[in-house]
Amino acid sequence: MSLQVRRREGPLSPETVKALVADLSARFGNRVVTSQAVREQHGHTTTWIANAPPDAVLFAEDREDVIDAVRICAQHDAPIVPFGVGSSLEGHVNALFGGLSIDFSRMNRVLAVHAEDLDCVVEPGITRKTLNAHLRDSGLFFPIDPGADASIGGMAATRASGTNAVRYGTMKDNVLSLGIVTAEGKFIRTASRAKKSSAGYDLTRLYVGSEGTLGVIVEVTLKLAGIPECISGGHCPFPDVRSACLTAIETIQSGIPVARIELLDTLMVQASNAYSKLTLPETPMLFLEFHGSEESVAEQSRRFAEIAEGNGGGPFAWTTNTEERNKLWQARHDSYWASFGLRPGAKAFATDVCVPLSRLAECVEQTQADVAETGLVAPIVGHVGDGNFHVSPLIDMSSREELERANAFGERLALRAIRMGGTCTGEHGVGQKKIPYLVAEHGEDALDLMRRLKAAIDPQNLFNPGKIFTA
Amino acid sequence: MSLQVRRREGPLSPETVKALVADLSARFGNRVVTSQAVREQHGHTTTWIANAPPDAVLFAEDREDVIDAVRICAQHDAPIVPFGVGSSLEGHVNALFGGLSIDFSRMNRVLAVHAEDLDCVVEPGITRKTLNAHLRDSGLFFPIDPGADASIGGMAATRASGTNAVRYGTMKDNVLSLGIVTAEGKFIRTASRAKKSSAGYDLTRLYVGSEGTLGVIVEVTLKLAGIPECISGGHCPFPDVRSACLTAIETIQSGIPVARIELLDTLMVQASNAYSKLTLPETPMLFLEFHGSEESVAEQSRRFAEIAEGNGGGPFAWTTNTEERNKLWQARHDSYWASFGLRPGAKAFATDVCVPLSRLAECVEQTQADVAETGLVAPIVGHVGDGNFHVSPLIDMSSREELERANAFGERLALRAIRMGGTCTGEHGVGQKKIPYLVAEHGEDALDLMRRLKAAIDPQNLFNPGKIFTA
Repeated sequence: MSLQVRRREGPLSPETVKALVADLSARFGNRVVTSQAVREQHGHTTTWIANAPPDAVLFAEDREDVIDAVRICAQHDAPIVPFGVGSSLEGHVNALFGGLSIDFSRMNRVLAVHAEDLDCVVEPGITRKTLNAHLRDSGLFFPIDPGADASIGGMAATRASGTNAVRYGTMKDNVLSLGIVTAEGKFIRTASRAKKSSAGYDLTRLYVGSEGTLGVIVEVTLKLAGIPECISGGHCPFPDVRSACLTAIETIQSGIPVARIELLDTLMVQASNAYSKLTLPETPMLFLEFHGSEESVAEQSRRFAEIAEGNGGGPFAWTTNTEERNKLWQARHDSYWASFGLRPGAKAFATDVCVPLSRLAECVEQTQADVAETGLVAPIVGHVGDGNFHVSPLIDMSSREELERANAFGERLALRAIRMGGTCTGEHGVGQKKIPYLVAEHGEDALDLMRRLKAAIDPQNLFNPGKIFTA
Repeated sequence: MSLQVRRREGPLSPETVKALVADLSARFGNRVVTSQAVREQHGHTTTWIANAPPDAVLFAEDREDVIDAVRICAQHDAPIVPFGVGSSLEGHVNALFGGLSIDFSRMNRVLAVHAEDLDCVVEPGITRKTLNAHLRDSGLFFPIDPGADASIGGMAATRASGTNAVRYGTMKDNVLSLGIVTAEGKFIRTASRAKKSSAGYDLTRLYVGSEGTLGVIVEVTLKLAGIPECISGGHCPFPDVRSACLTAIETIQSGIPVARIELLDTLMVQASNAYSKLTLPETPMLFLEFHGSEESVAEQSRRFAEIAEGNGGGPFAWTTNTEERNKLWQARHDSYWASFGLRPGAKAFATDVCVPLSRLAECVEQTQADVAETGLVAPIVGHVGDGNFHVSPLIDMSSREELERANAFGERLALRAIRMGGTCTGEHGVGQKKIPYLVAEHGEDALDLMRRLKAAIDPQNLFNPGKIFTA
């Protein structure tokens, strides 16, 4: 009697598309766009995963637009795929069964800043950099930083995190409440603005990380943090990846409240030197950032340097100079783009495992050995304070054999992390290509429970079909 | 077509109880107990809410026991109510429709401590004090402290928090993963031990705070924190509740990483002086605790004292002496019991609202005025760093009129908090008596979504019927 995710069989029929677009256009006029260029821009464009454009794109302007769009799509049994800025690496924005992409770029307002409560309410299309520019004078900031200037709605949908999750947590920890349009076209709020609550099921956390499969996010209430009095940053070279990982582990265990601690392997350092015009020694490297008072960041830096030295690393060069610090972190954030310099014309194969800290060094080492054996060009960067790292094989898309080799590598990597008590995705989400690993990670019964949740909330399978679950 | 929570009509028939007990006894022998005394001990005993004993109690010893118990209960369509230590204040352990109480006092083992990963795996029956005694030599501790020596399973089920949530978060933030027995009698784990994951729906957070209504918790993986180098504690008197609240708000806003910040109103201070043999000035009071290095706690204390002084409070008397500190916090933890001294023979009426910090002073003041107008004896304590406070009217249970007065007061309080953007329950859970407030807090459509989740996961309504939802 178990509830099942409704199966979709293929694209909408031309007649359905025509009727859908007619109804949408009647309601939204020229804010509904069906040109091929715009449709393709709203499919996946960031990795090797194939572009799957929607049948139409709606540029939504407010909550009522989304409610009406969901109702019209439901009438035509047409899928709905929310679109922020398209920075997903896992195909989330692909319209695998056609339907409507809802573009949130015009829903990018800050609705309220409650400085006293350390929170704010925003529309989902605002990006994190735009939000932080808006907040600058308040003394507050939104700390989650996945590198890309992603939309807040997309970050909530994928349970994003990034470089300073080690200190500030992930979107799970920083979303107070969501405004959602449900499959019935109703608007709900998942929680109040209270800092904590025990009033029923945690709908907020159910929607954070649900990848657009349970409803459409139209409002996000975020926790904010005080801008630190002082920020220091620096880099520290290591003889090998193991000693860098061990240093990260000991730093966390010793309770140093590090704000960022990022691993780059030798290949990644080489790529970053070339792309970002740095002159780092070409050896495994940790990039670090500390937040606190002036004395506190100095103390944290000193303690870190001691740990690094104990593991054969160093010297740790650090600075509180904003310009130098920004150059370093810009290079880290550009590492994805820098890696393409290692193999011009290639596409990236994104991976995203996360393991318990105690297994991190072992997991990275085994993975490096696997990369070498598989004959891939695959730099490594990692949020090593959380046990999360990215290996990104660069693929010549004209070689089917090479793609298969990368796929097999990706599968071994995911299963290795799962065997070590970890996860196939620390922050990117499941999207299209990690679906096969969920059984190994969760077991069939837990996965069945997730499927039942989906079926109970979205019986038509309107919302982002083909993501998280096969459709 | 919406899924509905299955309605239960009343107690099990005598024939069903007989057949159920026979099957349970055949499997579990004398670990199934049906004596009236034991059954009543497993109903609600902490507040004015009436005791509703189960038909039988099982003293479970391992996961397999729970799986078999769930299967046997499902065959007889008998409710299942998990029981930790019975410290719930909201009737969670009451068997409103009879059935089986599963007592977890014998499932109290520590299954693993992963010191490198700052986590541990425990059975749900272990209490927080027993766990912390076990951890003492590891340099780690489990920080969540609801006052009562509650079971970890019960704390997870109610999304408990308490005095140091302001620094360490709630159970939502400190449970990494749960082992659950589902309605089908299957064992699932809700997540891996990785520090973060984007691999599908957040089942962990769905079960944290689900009050036993979605399955039975049989294993809990908890985050641990390093024992602080130095802990200081102290108390600070204020001329009125407003100045104490404003001091709490400013302390949080200024970024002081206070570990505990607790309000006691004058009546509560009087009760605590009498019960805990203290000699505090009888005026509103904040109790505080700071964690950090020796310099850091001194610095935090100094900054707090300045803020208090600016609001007319002080002097702030603080100490790093463990014995003095423990005496103060024991008094705070005993405040619930101390309050009974204000009216011997009375029962407590527990309340638990939580509002955005910016509304805290206003909410406490309005509530004090309401207490005075209603003519209740009702001391106030509060986790004011989170905007959460407890007013506990003491009720003469022989007076129906008085109980009705307290009920009307409780309703006004809940709706006041909800109107201010808060919640009717910050940490105790919904249980039986807060069900009527959920529509005002969440709206009918969000509540319908919760009901669908319940129906999808527990179609028979086996698990703790009559809690969170009417049954």
